[in-house]
Amino acid sequence: MIKPYVLGIDIGGTNTVFGIVDARGVVLASSSIKTQKHADFDDYLDELHTEVIRLLEANDALDKILGIGIGAPNANYYTGTIEGKVNLPWPSPLPLAQIVSEKFGIPVAITNDANAAAIGEMTYGAARGLRDFIMITLGTGVGSGIVINGQLVYGHDGFAGELGHTIIRRNNGRLCGCGRTGCLEAYCSATGVARTAREFLEIREDESLLRELPIDAITSKDVYDAAIKGDKLAKEIFEYTGNILGEAFADFTVFSSPEAIILFGGLAKSGDLLMRPLRESMEKNMLHIFKGKVKVIPSELKEADAAVLGASALGWEAGKANSAPNPVAVPAKTNE
Amino acid sequence: MIKPYVLGIDIGGTNTVFGIVDARGVVLASSSIKTQKHADFDDYLDELHTEVIRLLEANDALDKILGIGIGAPNANYYTGTIEGKVNLPWPSPLPLAQIVSEKFGIPVAITNDANAAAIGEMTYGAARGLRDFIMITLGTGVGSGIVINGQLVYGHDGFAGELGHTIIRRNNGRLCGCGRTGCLEAYCSATGVARTAREFLEIREDESLLRELPIDAITSKDVYDAAIKGDKLAKEIFEYTGNILGEAFADFTVFSSPEAIILFGGLAKSGDLLMRPLRESMEKNMLHIFKGKVKVIPSELKEADAAVLGASALGWEAGKANSAPNPVAVPAKTNE
Repeated sequence: MIKPYVLGIDIGGTNTVFGIVDARGVVLASSSIKTQKHADFDDYLDELHTEVIRLLEANDALDKILGIGIGAPNANYYTGTIEGKVNLPWPSPLPLAQIVSEKFGIPVAITNDANAAAIGEMTYGAARGLRDFIMITLGTGVGSGIVINGQLVYGHDGFAGELGHTIIRRNNGRLCGCGRTGCLEAYCSATGVARTAREFLEIREDESLLRELPIDAITSKDVYDAAIKGDKLAKEIFEYTGNILGEAFADFTVFSSPEAIILFGGLAKSGDLLMRPLRESMEKNMLHIFKGKVKVIPSELKEADAAVLGASALGWEAGKANSAPNPVAVPAKTNE
Repeated sequence: MIKPYVLGIDIGGTNTVFGIVDARGVVLASSSIKTQKHADFDDYLDELHTEVIRLLEANDALDKILGIGIGAPNANYYTGTIEGKVNLPWPSPLPLAQIVSEKFGIPVAITNDANAAAIGEMTYGAARGLRDFIMITLGTGVGSGIVINGQLVYGHDGFAGELGHTIIRRNNGRLCGCGRTGCLEAYCSATGVARTAREFLEIREDESLLRELPIDAITSKDVYDAAIKGDKLAKEIFEYTGNILGEAFADFTVFSSPEAIILFGGLAKSGDLLMRPLRESMEKNMLHIFKGKVKVIPSELKEADAAVLGASALGWEAGKANSAPNPVAVPAKTNE
């Protein structure tokens, strides 16, 4: 029997969102459960299973799921395991792919959220037909998924593509969550933009709409709202952020010479406020042979669907891996 | 008829070296001509053809060459063309692969010298069996060849892997030959090491064997010789160089998470003088999930043979591409 759908599951620290996706990238139906509610992983898995089965039954999709793709923090594609310190309530390493596969009787592949986004973009979005591109997710952190020769770059250990932790300021750099200083993420994530706002407000004297807000509560959204209203300081924060991203993108280009760098996440929707200084800085910093060659474009995935779509795209790989044996995905042990 | 050999040709600004190589990476015989002598490319090609045929005849290898691999500056694997400003006497773009293929009646593939070195290392050297590694060539410049999933990274335009032009000093960086400032190459090439020596000697007052030499004539070899004799300043030049390479390698690792970084070229033979500070700096600067995972090892190719071996490894690809049509190599138009 042909199985026309995949299931995408995005496991975040707060919520777990899942949806049924068809081959054209349409999310037929989706739902969610609270990740945080379950300190015990077995409890979590039971609720996830119950709610997924409910969703499948309601959409006449039981027995129609070819594979399950999961995006989760520090999820390792090769081992199927969540490894290292992550913002999830369960102990690690956690052999997620195997456990979920056994529970559902469906093959499962997992990767981190930024890699899932890259696969989603390649399968359904702005990167269709591109064989060499870099996905940059500008969220709480800066994530990345790198595609070379049409393949996601996992590296020898499954953890490649941590471009948010490229050192972009080597002297007096900002402290990063990773414990080092000067990482791209400390400047160009949503959090980084808010830090820039606080720095600018503290160091400078000029007026700004942002001075009306409690300084510790300022978010990147506040900066955006002020910039849209023409606030000079807020616009300069975007210049500053775009300038640093452009420097970083020029360095990424000497590595893999991508056809495009695709931006995803809240900041990526800032339009020309971010894109103009970013593109100018990238070209200014670019090695001559790459000048004018690299497109910087926003994601084409709807933000509400993107996490599920990205994860689901891995489900096709998992499903294929199940028919032709492949070390990549954990095949299901039972078939319901 | 089975063709058991390939021909490797390394085109440098001064000399062109070529050799007959078997499947185990043994250079059966090699020879060279002067690149510089021929302002006219047709003259050059005539002499190359004559000398190659002479070498093949002398080794009973005529009609036994499966393919020709060529390493040359700015040689583009995809287009088969030498593009941009290079240190060669002929106008560019030059459709090298096609011209040589037609002249010899043998399929030809070309790439730049650092990529050729990476393919050589993967085919015959320290990278055998590695699917994810980075080759760094420390010569007059800093070159690189990146292998991911067992494939050389060419990027969308064929020019990926210019890691010598990663910006490693963003403020007050040294001027690089590329016209920008702060490139890795301006610090860690043989030329960069000599520049460091001159800086140290000018800024500092302490004694050094290097002060016995005319300051403008100091080479990286002089620094090595002094360091080996225990000269403190010379040893600190290696510390400085290794420290910067380590910073760069930590950044490369967040991109592709290689199993190993392989060093090739004169400086790579400096042993612990360079390797100890390099490895210490790399680990100190490494993102936690990659600490202790990346090996830094010297090339296993004999330097005298390496250029020819590296180029020759591409000859196998060119030969295979000829039997199974493939956009990668230019198939021969005639078969002698």
